[in-house]
Parts: sequence; structure tokens; C-alpha cells
Amino acid sequence: MLNIDTTSPRQVRAAIARGEITGNTAAFCPGYAQANLVILPKEWAFDFLLFGLRNKQACPILEVLDPGDPISKVIAPGADVRDELPRYRLWRDGELVEEPTGIHHLWRDDLVSFYLGCSFSFDDALKAAGLPVRHQQMGVNVPMYRTKLPAASAGRLHGPLVVSMRPMLPEQVDKAREVSAAFAEAHGAPVHAGDPAAIGIADLESPEYGDAVRLEPGEVPVFWACGVTPQAAVAASRVEMAITHAPGHMFISDIKAEDLGGKSLVTCG
Amino acid sequence: MLNIDTTSPRQVRAAIARGEITGNTAAFCPGYAQANLVILPKEWAFDFLLFGLRNKQACPILEVLDPGDPISKVIAPGADVRDELPRYRLWRDGELVEEPTGIHHLWRDDLVSFYLGCSFSFDDALKAAGLPVRHQQMGVNVPMYRTKLPAASAGRLHGPLVVSMRPMLPEQVDKAREVSAAFAEAHGAPVHAGDPAAIGIADLESPEYGDAVRLEPGEVPVFWACGVTPQAAVAASRVEMAITHAPGHMFISDIKAEDLGGKSLVTCG
Repeated sequence: MLNIDTTSPRQVRAAIARGEITGNTAAFCPGYAQANLVILPKEWAFDFLLFGLRNKQACPILEVLDPGDPISKVIAPGADVRDELPRYRLWRDGELVEEPTGIHHLWRDDLVSFYLGCSFSFDDALKAAGLPVRHQQMGVNVPMYRTKLPAASAGRLHGPLVVSMRPMLPEQVDKAREVSAAFAEAHGAPVHAGDPAAIGIADLESPEYGDAVRLEPGEVPVFWACGVTPQAAVAASRVEMAITHAPGHMFISDIKAEDLGGKSLVTCG
Repeated sequence: MLNIDTTSPRQVRAAIARGEITGNTAAFCPGYAQANLVILPKEWAFDFLLFGLRNKQACPILEVLDPGDPISKVIAPGADVRDELPRYRLWRDGELVEEPTGIHHLWRDDLVSFYLGCSFSFDDALKAAGLPVRHQQMGVNVPMYRTKLPAASAGRLHGPLVVSMRPMLPEQVDKAREVSAAFAEAHGAPVHAGDPAAIGIADLESPEYGDAVRLEPGEVPVFWACGVTPQAAVAASRVEMAITHAPGHMFISDIKAEDLGGKSLVTCG
């Protein structure tokens, strides 16, 4: 059994490609940046790239592959987008139709792959600062919610902001803000802390994505912009065909999380 | 006659739209950011947006308008891209075919407009630091050159890096680097100082764009990445149709040059 603390991202991705890991990747490869994935036909690629630029906190763009090219050049050189994530989602006309563990059978020459920063990248830094990371403590996926806050639309793409949630004591929120703000390309500082209803979340027990987590006495929910926001946009905008990661089932990159401090990586492409 | 030191960007753009100003905009509206312009059919917009992200120093993206929308929302709310620049270039199949002073007659519903940062934005800061800005001293356009350095390609778009040049004494180069580096969204620090041949420039007297300027005794040429790089890519890639600004004939925005320090503005869109 592979040790998720010490195995390199490359080795973990190889195990994923062999089908040996199909669960969520929270706590995998501490210190390495994880990434959200969005794959769209080229016909939608401009709208999505603009959506990402206009919603930089939810969709920090780490790398964009040329149409038809499945191979990363920047964040994990040589990695194949078609089988190195543990689980994918296939969307047709905005409906989730399948959750495969590989997408070789779906690949087309006009598909464009986007890797976006992910908040799992700063969970280790939160822990190192003495802050709770409840989903890791409980061994579950992080809870994610659709909010009533609209994302900025771009062309035909529109939808709500999706957030992830970590419970904290009120006196821990400032520290959590400070730690996560340094990870500008992984959603940065929280967008909200406190009353869920203020951002349109009716029930913390029923996240739209991932798993509910326990709030300890006195804790408040702290919300970060989430890279599942594009999935809500794919659904709301009824995109004909899209492939994404399954929420929490991320791409583990070769770059260090600490390098997500602001300078856009896509420029290296 | 309008005073270019004290008239607001909005008033200058209005004079431009009336056809009263058709020359280069160096030295206009000190302290305000100027912008390069690229307009492409939507069919090319994804390739170009990716080209910009991969060549961030040459093509810092300040704002992208939705297809068919000619009106700025971020860098100069309400400004019309079709007549508020003093001179444009129309390109067909990669060939320059016309240099109109307005483009209402060329407008189409599928055209996407990109505003990119421009080095004119830091000329005032160079002057304030006691450094020479020779093209302003001589009252001419800045000299721009095609180099042998390739820009990063994106999809069908490829071409050479284009640079602008300002002569400096060797002992002034560090200061110029320090001052311009603060303008990350306006090309930032120089890409080269010294021997022009090292980056493939054969003759400083014959810039491909703009005007030659005088080197004083002891001065060396200092080169910055330039927002005319997309025009070289439009030519090299034989894009069917494109509209750009005429080199040096920029869009004068409502935002302060000092705000081009790194945080991408497009996120406000």
C-alpha cells in the first residue's frame, strides 16, 4: 500500500493511472499543489478561458493545453490528463451522465484541457499553522456548496460561485485568512466566514459536492472560492459536452504549493 | 489646442473620436495607463487569449470584451474601441492593408477586443527617476524592433518577440530595471540591455515600427517586451482578419499607471 505522505506525485499519478486509487485526494502528497480540471470542446474554450480570467479567485489558471493535446508541459511535464486523475465527470447538455476513472474513450482532437488551482494546496499550511482541517481529520472529502453569489459571466458561460468550507473557531479565522491569502493561485483568502445563509447556503449538512463535516462547539464555517465553480457553470449554461474532475478527486501536480503565491504559472507554457 | 499634460483621458479620447488627434500618444496624459489593442474574430480568440497568457511580459491582458461588444467595462468604462484610438491597422491574411482612424465600417458581431498593457505607461516614472526617455525628448514615436527571440506559440499563433527601445547610460540600466519592474502589467523590467545583435536586431537605425532615436555618447540600447508582438504574430500566422492599433497610437485608459503593479485587472470584468 502506497504511503500518501511520502510517495512522489509522479508515483501517485502512476498508481492512479493503473486504477489503484479512485478516491478523493485530500491529504495526498503534502506540500504539492493539486489542481481542478475542466475539459471543453474548442468551441467553448474562449468563453471558458475568459470565465477563468474574470473569476480568478475561483478559477486560478495554472495551465492550458493546446486543443487535442492531453500532455501537461508546465505543472506536471509528461502527465496524461486522460488517466492521471482518480475520477472524472462527463457532462452532456449540462447534465452529469457518468463518473469514469479514465477518459481515453472520450478523447477528441478538439478538446482543450484547463488545470486550475485547488484549495487542497493550502490545507498543509493551515495544519502547520495549528489550524483544524476537519475533512482531513475525519478522512472525508471537503464539503462544497453552491452559493447565491453569481460568478462573472463570460460569453455563454454563467453560473453561481461554488465554495469549499472548513470549520474554525472565530479567533482562528484571521490566521486562516493570512495563511491562505499567500496561495493566490489556489483560491487565496476566504470569501466569507460565518452565517451560511448570507451567501445562500441553506443547510451545511447537505453540501452539493463532497461530504458534510462536523462543526465543533463554538466553530463557524469558513468558505473559500472553489474550483468546482466551472462545473456549476457547465450545468447552468447547458454546455453540450464537458469533462471535469469529480469534486475532491484532483490532479496532483509536480509543483510545490508554496509556488502558488501569485506569479501566474501559465506564462511558463 | 488641447493640453496633453492636463486634459483627462476621457477628453483626449473624445478629441480622438472626433478625428482631431491622429498621431502617436507618447507623453499623453501623464500618469495614466496606455494600452495596446488587438481585435480578432472569435474563431481566433481562444488562440490569442492563450498566446497572451503564455507571453505575459509582451502581452499583459488588461481587459477582454465579449464577442461583438465594442464598449470597455474595466479600463475606461463606456469607451468605444471603434473610434477612441488615433490610428488602427487592418490586417488581412497577415498583410497590412489599411491604417484607418476609425473602424466602425469594419465592425462585426464576432469580433473580440483585447486591451494589453503598454510601456508608455512607465515612461513618466522613468522621467521622474531622472532617466532619459529619448522618444519623448525628440517628440517622436518609440522605436520598436522584431527580434530573433520566439514568442511562445499558442494553437495556430506564432511569431517573434517585438521589443521597444530606450537608450540609457550603462549606469542608468539598473535604475530603469527597478522602476519598470514595478509595472508588471505594462511589460515590467527590460528583456535585454546592450548588444542589439544578441537578440537579432541588425540595425538600430531601422526599426520595424515607430521611429529611430539618437543614442548619446556612451549610451546603450535597453529593450522592453512590446505589445506590438501580437501584430508580428498576426503577420507570421497569416490570420485571415485582424485589427490592431497602429504602433505608438495607443488607447489611453482611465486607470492610473501605478495600478499596473501586478494584480490582473481583467478579474474586475
